[in-house]
Amino acid sequence: MYREKIKVLDCTIRDGGLINKHKFSHEFVRKVYQALSIAGVDYMEIGYKNSPHLFSESEFGPWKFCKEEDLRRVIDGIESNTKISVMADVGRVDMDNIFPASESPVDMVRVASYVKGIDKAIAMVNEFADKGYETCINIMAISRDQGIELDEALHQIEEESKASVIYIVDSFGSLYQEHVEYLVKHFKTILKTKEIGFHGHNNQQLAFCNTIEAIIHDANYMDATIYGIGRAAGNCTLELLIGFLKNPKYDIRPILDIIAKEFVPLKKQIEWGYIIPYAIAGMLNEHPRAAMALRESEKKDEFLEFYNTITQAQMD
Amino acid sequence: MYREKIKVLDCTIRDGGLINKHKFSHEFVRKVYQALSIAGVDYMEIGYKNSPHLFSESEFGPWKFCKEEDLRRVIDGIESNTKISVMADVGRVDMDNIFPASESPVDMVRVASYVKGIDKAIAMVNEFADKGYETCINIMAISRDQGIELDEALHQIEEESKASVIYIVDSFGSLYQEHVEYLVKHFKTILKTKEIGFHGHNNQQLAFCNTIEAIIHDANYMDATIYGIGRAAGNCTLELLIGFLKNPKYDIRPILDIIAKEFVPLKKQIEWGYIIPYAIAGMLNEHPRAAMALRESEKKDEFLEFYNTITQAQMD
Repeated sequence: MYREKIKVLDCTIRDGGLINKHKFSHEFVRKVYQALSIAGVDYMEIGYKNSPHLFSESEFGPWKFCKEEDLRRVIDGIESNTKISVMADVGRVDMDNIFPASESPVDMVRVASYVKGIDKAIAMVNEFADKGYETCINIMAISRDQGIELDEALHQIEEESKASVIYIVDSFGSLYQEHVEYLVKHFKTILKTKEIGFHGHNNQQLAFCNTIEAIIHDANYMDATIYGIGRAAGNCTLELLIGFLKNPKYDIRPILDIIAKEFVPLKKQIEWGYIIPYAIAGMLNEHPRAAMALRESEKKDEFLEFYNTITQAQMD
Repeated sequence: MYREKIKVLDCTIRDGGLINKHKFSHEFVRKVYQALSIAGVDYMEIGYKNSPHLFSESEFGPWKFCKEEDLRRVIDGIESNTKISVMADVGRVDMDNIFPASESPVDMVRVASYVKGIDKAIAMVNEFADKGYETCINIMAISRDQGIELDEALHQIEEESKASVIYIVDSFGSLYQEHVEYLVKHFKTILKTKEIGFHGHNNQQLAFCNTIEAIIHDANYMDATIYGIGRAAGNCTLELLIGFLKNPKYDIRPILDIIAKEFVPLKKQIEWGYIIPYAIAGMLNEHPRAAMALRESEKKDEFLEFYNTITQAQMD
């Protein structure tokens, strides 16, 4: 699938940071940036732009805050066309301390929001846009929040927001390809001036498939992570996505190399991927919270009991 | 997706047998049969019907041969509507020793063939059909063998074979969903009196996705294995497939239970699943042979060198 407008956004460090409290070393993040730069990946999302007044810097690593000096430490001196993205949560950013884009290593800011928080997300994204950043809104938990509330939010985004890209986020990894087809087409009927993006989770081994499906129906911004790293079941893998896209600007080789050198060893230390409780959460359209708690407990492999508990709760 | 005609064929023991020389214990196979029976799975493929004159019974386990007494040992005494399937390779079966279906625990025989061997496959499948078995032809390596040879084979199958189901087999795990859509539609234009089946491999994490795609386009026979076990990257997982099919005759719970009790421990002993050399083989449309050899060698994690070797060979 060659289409020049397609952009690949790697969120290895941002989404992967959710399973290690954003504690990747500067050296590790620098290696990832170098690999992505050689691979020709369009964006690297490096973490969250949270206020250090709200979260403890001793509990969380640097990519929970993405201070300018930490960003510069990993990117300085590396030749690159890969743009830097950070994620912003409504109410957690100290807006007074955001530099104008022209003075920052950050190129893009993505505001993550549930449908119900869309007013605040639009206000925030417009502030970032006014400071000169490329902006996106990532609409989370789309598998739960459809219907009239979603449509109203989309109309509001189209009319009021300066975001250039609106992402469909399959937070629970529960969408099948027919849902993705429907959602991308539906988004496009309302968001006539925006690009559509897709961020999948791999609970049901469908993150890559759903990303392809989004591409087929003309979404142009695609999230992926190296070796699929990410919270719970993880994400669409960058290596498979690059293998699918026939765009000669991408080079899979530095990604294969860094997987062998860094991510295969890392996966022996932290868990992500196809794990049955996450699959169950995905097929039942549930937040992975309960499954993550299960995996931290002594009952980590008590799949049947977990399934019975969730399905019972859904019927109550 | 509820469609009464859809049949699920579990090939856990048959395809899984390719990575342990068919050495599952009778007790293990019996547990799988019991779980599939309670789960309401339509068919269980238990192994190959090879002649013991061609392969050593000391080198290979019982499911390379599927003798009647071994089959009876695992199924006798278990209440079940799950039919038994075996696979037959052209030229490897001692046809004189095949009982009529009425005297055998086997219900279905699937003949696996490349496009070029279709004459012999049809002859063999017709022999089995004449003995009273349900029969299928599994056309292997479909991602390589398309064009006029495939079409001629399909016409020949439609006109000459007694097989009731013709499978599209993505042997290399290289098909994307658009290929599956094309192939299922194309098969149906020629095979007007046959059902279509799909057997995926999971090199690119697309086996489940492609199985859904085949279902959407009216294929009715779907292969899967418990926890995705199978050669190299493995197969479409049975648990995800049952989670997708909304047919109330299936029950996912015994499958989740046997995964926890048997397959999670097993996966610590034998390797299958999303492993980069298999992903590379899939995206480059190559047999997994070279990747399997790599995984047996000291260079098992030398992904970049492997990629360079394969792509270089493809250009020579």
